[in-house]
Amino acid sequence: MAHTLILLRHGHSEWNAKNLFTGWVDVDLNDQGREEAVRGGQLLKERGVLPTVVHTSVLRRAITTANLALDAADRHWIPVRRDWRLNERHYGALQGLDKAATREKYGDEQFMLWRRSFDTPPPPIEVGSEFDQTDDPRYAGVEVPRTECLKDVIERFMPYWEGGLRDDLVAGETVLVVAHGNSLRGLVKHLDGISDEAIAELNIPTGQPLVYELGDDFMPTKPGEYLDPEAAATAAAAVANQGR
Amino acid sequence: MAHTLILLRHGHSEWNAKNLFTGWVDVDLNDQGREEAVRGGQLLKERGVLPTVVHTSVLRRAITTANLALDAADRHWIPVRRDWRLNERHYGALQGLDKAATREKYGDEQFMLWRRSFDTPPPPIEVGSEFDQTDDPRYAGVEVPRTECLKDVIERFMPYWEGGLRDDLVAGETVLVVAHGNSLRGLVKHLDGISDEAIAELNIPTGQPLVYELGDDFMPTKPGEYLDPEAAATAAAAVANQGR
Repeated sequence: MAHTLILLRHGHSEWNAKNLFTGWVDVDLNDQGREEAVRGGQLLKERGVLPTVVHTSVLRRAITTANLALDAADRHWIPVRRDWRLNERHYGALQGLDKAATREKYGDEQFMLWRRSFDTPPPPIEVGSEFDQTDDPRYAGVEVPRTECLKDVIERFMPYWEGGLRDDLVAGETVLVVAHGNSLRGLVKHLDGISDEAIAELNIPTGQPLVYELGDDFMPTKPGEYLDPEAAATAAAAVANQGR
Repeated sequence: MAHTLILLRHGHSEWNAKNLFTGWVDVDLNDQGREEAVRGGQLLKERGVLPTVVHTSVLRRAITTANLALDAADRHWIPVRRDWRLNERHYGALQGLDKAATREKYGDEQFMLWRRSFDTPPPPIEVGSEFDQTDDPRYAGVEVPRTECLKDVIERFMPYWEGGLRDDLVAGETVLVVAHGNSLRGLVKHLDGISDEAIAELNIPTGQPLVYELGDDFMPTKPGEYLDPEAAATAAAAVANQGR
């Protein structure tokens, strides 16, 4: 039995526009991000790739992207699942800092290490600091991380891939996952068998639906396809240039 | 154990503004309706009445109301359930017709009978007509009604009250139900023990959160309260005047 999985990274947020590290801070989409979400949903509709269930993180920018995209695709009525395991990477003490200023202060090498290294997390966020979320009710019962590298994200994401997401694929659902740059990089790394080193070069474009057909082993039977490959390539290049 | 139930009727839709019978036709909110939804969510936040799970119909105007209200209440991340049993009353062959023109054509008595009688449904919608939804994928496996009176709505709604909604109340959730004039009238009729005759006079205002505290028997321990009683009374009067 073939399974269809659609990945969608949320569009531009208020902090993307300000060039700040966001992580788990619950910022909203900006107008550009809303337009990207609507366009992503229109693409799904135009191409007849129609999700029957949606999974999102518990962060506003992914949730709003899902709401707008599904509305544009006339799929607003499908079942919704949310899980913190789909959240963006926790950016530790960098959350709220300007990316360009951080790059200038710590240098190119350290900056790229924090942004792209597989297993070097940024310094941990301080308890009680402005963007600490230990007491947020949405994380009741969750051991909220204080910082994460991509390896950490994959470790907390995989149980959800093998759990809730897998269950819906087994049930024959066409599953839409609306999430973040790093949670989706973790999933694509697994699906495409990308090495710990090579994943540093992978940039997932915002607002571009990426469709995988999976086999019985829940691995791709052919390469994942962007519904609009040209726009996806342009958007991925824009992500790579952040902080420059 | 006390249970908290919050009812919210979706705000003005494109067809409210045009004074058309809507029923199951999946029209969108208009700008006024979006503002009502946001205001409803702000009221929840201001008053600290914070839902932990939301239930909606499968119609766009209720779903968008829920999305906007929850976003305004900083509760966008709570679990979501959707069910067709929360849908508006199916208005049969009247769907898409102008309310004032219908009143003029059929007379006051017939008009009020269709709008407010407990057990007289409008004429059934024709199969294959413009607003027939027999083939809509969201109703796969559902015996889609061709018309409904309020009694019919209550009959298809009550299994959901005693099922999915009850389950969440039992689990200690603060349950927000975002639905429609007639599905909510059916629930309020049950909760407040309103007779088949008296329910004709009950108008539920749009965008006004109505909060019930329920006891172990899932019946109110005191009358339901609108979070903004003055605005609710004004809005209820506006509903009563539709079609005039």
